[in-house]
This record gives sequence, structure tokens and C-alpha cells, in this order.
Amino acid sequence: MIVDISKKILIVGLGLLGGSYAKALKRFGFHISAITKEQSSIDYAIAEKIIDEGSTELDERIIGEADMVIFALYPHIFIEWIEKNQHLLKSGAFITDVTGVKCSVVYKVQEMLRPDVEFVAAHPMAGREVSGVENSTDKIFAGANYIVTPTEKNTPEAISTCMELGRLLGFANVTALSPEEHDEMIGFLSQLTHCIAVTLMTCNDKEDMEKFTGDSFRDLTRIARINDLMWSELFIENKEVLINHMNSFIDKFNELKSMLEAEDVDSMRAMMRHSTRRRALFDKK
Amino acid sequence: MIVDISKKILIVGLGLLGGSYAKALKRFGFHISAITKEQSSIDYAIAEKIIDEGSTELDERIIGEADMVIFALYPHIFIEWIEKNQHLLKSGAFITDVTGVKCSVVYKVQEMLRPDVEFVAAHPMAGREVSGVENSTDKIFAGANYIVTPTEKNTPEAISTCMELGRLLGFANVTALSPEEHDEMIGFLSQLTHCIAVTLMTCNDKEDMEKFTGDSFRDLTRIARINDLMWSELFIENKEVLINHMNSFIDKFNELKSMLEAEDVDSMRAMMRHSTRRRALFDKK
Repeated sequence: MIVDISKKILIVGLGLLGGSYAKALKRFGFHISAITKEQSSIDYAIAEKIIDEGSTELDERIIGEADMVIFALYPHIFIEWIEKNQHLLKSGAFITDVTGVKCSVVYKVQEMLRPDVEFVAAHPMAGREVSGVENSTDKIFAGANYIVTPTEKNTPEAISTCMELGRLLGFANVTALSPEEHDEMIGFLSQLTHCIAVTLMTCNDKEDMEKFTGDSFRDLTRIARINDLMWSELFIENKEVLINHMNSFIDKFNELKSMLEAEDVDSMRAMMRHSTRRRALFDKK
Repeated sequence: MIVDISKKILIVGLGLLGGSYAKALKRFGFHISAITKEQSSIDYAIAEKIIDEGSTELDERIIGEADMVIFALYPHIFIEWIEKNQHLLKSGAFITDVTGVKCSVVYKVQEMLRPDVEFVAAHPMAGREVSGVENSTDKIFAGANYIVTPTEKNTPEAISTCMELGRLLGFANVTALSPEEHDEMIGFLSQLTHCIAVTLMTCNDKEDMEKFTGDSFRDLTRIARINDLMWSELFIENKEVLINHMNSFIDKFNELKSMLEAEDVDSMRAMMRHSTRRRALFDKK
């Protein structure tokens, strides 16, 4: 399937991310439908003209007509949906997802999926601290990364379609990684950072500190305002990788603590210079 | 001493912070002088009209004429300066500093200081990732905190002068804490956060991760670009407090790791909800 505007796109799960997909894709003139829990989300999206139609039910016509289905659901809900409802998908449909963990999702879904439907997994690395279709905006894709995680079950054509979708959405970087590489990297860059932010935010309940807080503490805890349902699931779905990263972090943190205990200035300064050099790589280009 | 514009102000150490003080105070028309290491810093500041005169030497006239002396030096250099050069200060002079640790500085300096000169310590909680007078700007004070740390050796008048200075500089919040309260708080809000950022930046040297880095990782490591000379000194000067905070952080981080190992979703979610509630207190007002 090539992404042309005659194709009908269905978004399952019209929250912040699903809504932002709808907004970004509607600019091109695609027919967009949605299936989601709340009627209010559909009403909002129709009023805003970012979808053409929608249902809170498993509408067989809407599902059966979709050439492309984007699942913007939590991992376990996505897997359950496929298990129960994949018979409703159009033959030849292309499906993709937005989940933040890949190994525990991709292989399960591809294993059980009908042979006449193809699933290429993707992770749009974009979000906000707020949720719901009402907060959706395609601005979150500008400057962000979109990672496709193909497996040997995928065809080159479907992989191209998935990467094309990332570019249409407006992502700055569209790349491909194996599910394993993805989970290793995301475990470090995203999950470990959330573990650290939540820990920092909860390890000291002293009162009135907000009066003295500067930008450093605010920066390190911005993501400590966290969707507990989603992140606890993501952590557990990538448990082994994340625990390895947590252990590496603890080891290094304890090294620094030992240097401080010993007042080993030279080692502390060497670690800080390493940090400074390495951080330069991560400046926004 | 009341801060009126007939007073002569001397800044010792014309770097980012000293220069920013000069810029902020020059708006009011004070006579401002500077003593600093590099002639180029003085030349720049005179050309920019943020100081009236300056020297790279211990100019006895400049020092002897100053009603207010602001030491924008590293802690140990400030202490050494007072030890060696305090005889040059004008009788009745008011002196203050900018150091990020207080207990290890304030008591030493007040103990050795001439009785006819008063030192009220202060911590302007403002900075940038760049250094040098050329990067100075009084914009860094807007919205920031200025903490005065008086002791029983200080007079109410001098404490008022020091708080007045913070308001003149343009700080949003000017408050007073004991040196002990200050170090406890700064050990958590600033020093622990820098330890965490440096550790995160150095605990995984995998290549090419910058290609996939999103805002979370960038936010948590912004301060990982760190002045190794200054921060290693600040850490050691507040060693006991900082090690206690590091231990609290490690304990909480290990709790989270145990929850994940046990797949204890309820406890993880409770910790995340605690984090979310507490983070709301720290939003910028």
C-alpha cells in the first residue's frame, strides 16, 4: 500500500496522540474515522473537522472500510483488540501502532495476526504532560523522532508505508530499529529518565521547598508528573532492559558518592568533564 | 548602611555572575569598580559601561573607597582573599558574596573578619551554562531566588542592606534562611540534581543515542554540562548534607526497582501518583 489520499484511515483510540495523528493527516485530505471510548471525544473531533466520522462501538462498516488502521492504545489493550476483533479488518489492510515498548507487543501481534493484514510497529517519540483529544496538536511532531521497528515478517512495501506515514505526520527524523534495539534505547533515554524524575520527586517530602526551587530541579522533575497507568505498564513490559539500566545508573551514582566521600577531586572532575563532553553531543542541532 | 546611589560598589571577580551584578546595578547609577584576574574582562566591562573602573591588581585606592564589596569568587578563593587582604577594606564597609554553599564559608569569614566590617552572606540562585563577563546579563535574576543567610553576628541593618541588594538586582524572591537551612535545601534542590544529571550522562556510553533523544533526556541532562572546578568544590564543601541526600535518593530508587522486579503495579502507581501530586507544587506560579 502506498499512502495516497484516496485511502481511508481509521484511528483506534482518540486521545492526545490519536487526535494529533488525525490533525496532522487531515491537512492532506484523507478520509479519517475514529473508534474510541468516549462520545465526547468523537463529538469534539468532528466539530474540529479532524475526523469525518466515528463511533464508540465496534462499527463493522467503519473498521471494514479502513485501508490503514492506527492503534493509539495502551499495549495490553491493543493486543486484546487484535485478539478479539481482527476478523473485522479489511483484507489487505495496513496496521500500525504508537506503543512505547516494542518487543512485548510486536511479536505477539504479528504472531496472531491474519496473513492478509500487515502490522508494522512504530513509536512516535512525542507527547505532552496533558492528555485527551482536546489537547492534541500536530506541533508535537515537529523536531521529534519517529522510529519504525520492522521484523522479518514485514514486507519492504509495508515498511516504506510506515516510514512514509511518519514523514506525513511531520516528524523531523524517521528511522528504523529492530524491536530489541528500540527497547534497549528507549529503556535508557525515556524509561530510566522517568524512574529518576519520579524518585527525585518522592525521596524528600520536606515542605516549602518550592519557594527556593530553581530551573535545575524543575527541569529534572518536569516528567515526574506522570500517567501512572501508562508508565507502570510500559516499565513492566520492558522490565529486564529497564532494570539493567537502573543498575548501571546506581553503580555510577555510587561511584560518584565514593569519590565525594573520599574527597577525590580529580576523579570527580574527570567524571564531570566526561559528562560535559558527552552532553555536547545531545544539543539540539 | 542603606543602599543609596552615592555608595561605591566594588565587585571582586568579574565573571558571569559578577558581570550580571554590575549590569543590574549600573542601571541605578551606582559607581561600580571591579577587581578581577583578566584585563580583557575589565576592558569589556568598561567598554560596555557596566563598570567605571577596574584593576587586575589589588588596587588599594579602589578597595579602600568601596562602601559595598561583592565577592563573586569560588568559596576557597573568597576565604583566602579575606585572610590576606581584609586590611585593605574601608572601615564600615558592607561585604557580601555569591557562593552556593554557606556553612563552610560564612562562619570562617565572619570569625576572622575585622570588627569594623560586616559580612552578610547571600546566594543568588541564578546562572547559565556559559561563563565569563561577556555572557553576563541581568535577565538571569528575573523570576529567580535570592537567599540571604544571616547569623547572630549580623546586625538588622546589614541584613536589610543585603536583602535590599537582592531586590535591586531584580530577583523575584528575596528571603532569609540560616546557613544550615540553606545548605540542606541547596544540597537537595541543586547539588543532588547535578549529581543525578552527571551520572545519567556518564552511565551509558552507547554511541548514536543522540539521534533518538527526546526532550525528557535533554531536560534531565541540561545541567550535565558542568563547571567541574566549581561544582567539585561545592560538593565537597557541603559533603555531609549531600551524601545524606544521595542516600535518600538511592533508597527510593531501589524501592522503585524492587516494585518493578516484583511487578507490583499498585505500589508503582501509588509512587507515581505521589510524584504527580508533589510536582504540581513546583510549577512556576
